[in-house]
Amino acid sequence: MESLNQTFAALADPTRRGIVAHLIRGEATVSELVQQFDLTQPTISSHLKVLESAGLISRSRKAQTRPCKLEPDGLQALDAWLERFRTVWEGNFERLDALLDDLQDRQPGKEKKP
Amino acid sequence: MESLNQTFAALADPTRRGIVAHLIRGEATVSELVQQFDLTQPTISSHLKVLESAGLISRSRKAQTRPCKLEPDGLQALDAWLERFRTVWEGNFERLDALLDDLQDRQPGKEKKP
Repeated sequence: MESLNQTFAALADPTRRGIVAHLIRGEATVSELVQQFDLTQPTISSHLKVLESAGLISRSRKAQTRPCKLEPDGLQALDAWLERFRTVWEGNFERLDALLDDLQDRQPGKEKKP
Repeated sequence: MESLNQTFAALADPTRRGIVAHLIRGEATVSELVQQFDLTQPTISSHLKVLESAGLISRSRKAQTRPCKLEPDGLQALDAWLERFRTVWEGNFERLDALLDDLQDRQPGKEKKP
């Protein structure tokens, strides 16, 4: 619950969503992100801290460049939260289909199915 | 882009996520939400303002009770943003399958497929 708050808050910023989208392709260093987003290193670092604290990315401790990596768990939690709404959207269409079938069956000159 | 910022920010609060989830079942008045979430009317009203301004809910102007209704567009925009990650998750599994198939083909005593 708490982590879902952090996930949503972290993704409320377009640069942070851009970083997450960029990391789909694979790991990236801070320098690469600085170049990609045309922002200063402190700005990128501060965005990375928010993303890391929300569990959306992780940073390797091994190399001096500490490359950033996408952690799918956070996005998958968000996806799981949305799942119930998708069920309703799909359910609504099924209900709509059933309603339209029923209305068609009730048209004059057509027998209603038993 | 701007509205996606608002969507994410609005959903970074557990009460607001709760209200959105509650409205899946259908419209609700402020009084019903006050009762459901055991919060004061000003607190619920302030949450509703944030949700309405993010386009996640709408409020009827007709009745005195001004019932709240879920507006699926906001959640569907969020779902569309997540779509690319789902593609990668699914793509990754396909790539993993291909890799495992390839490794199996390379096992000693087994011919590599042309």
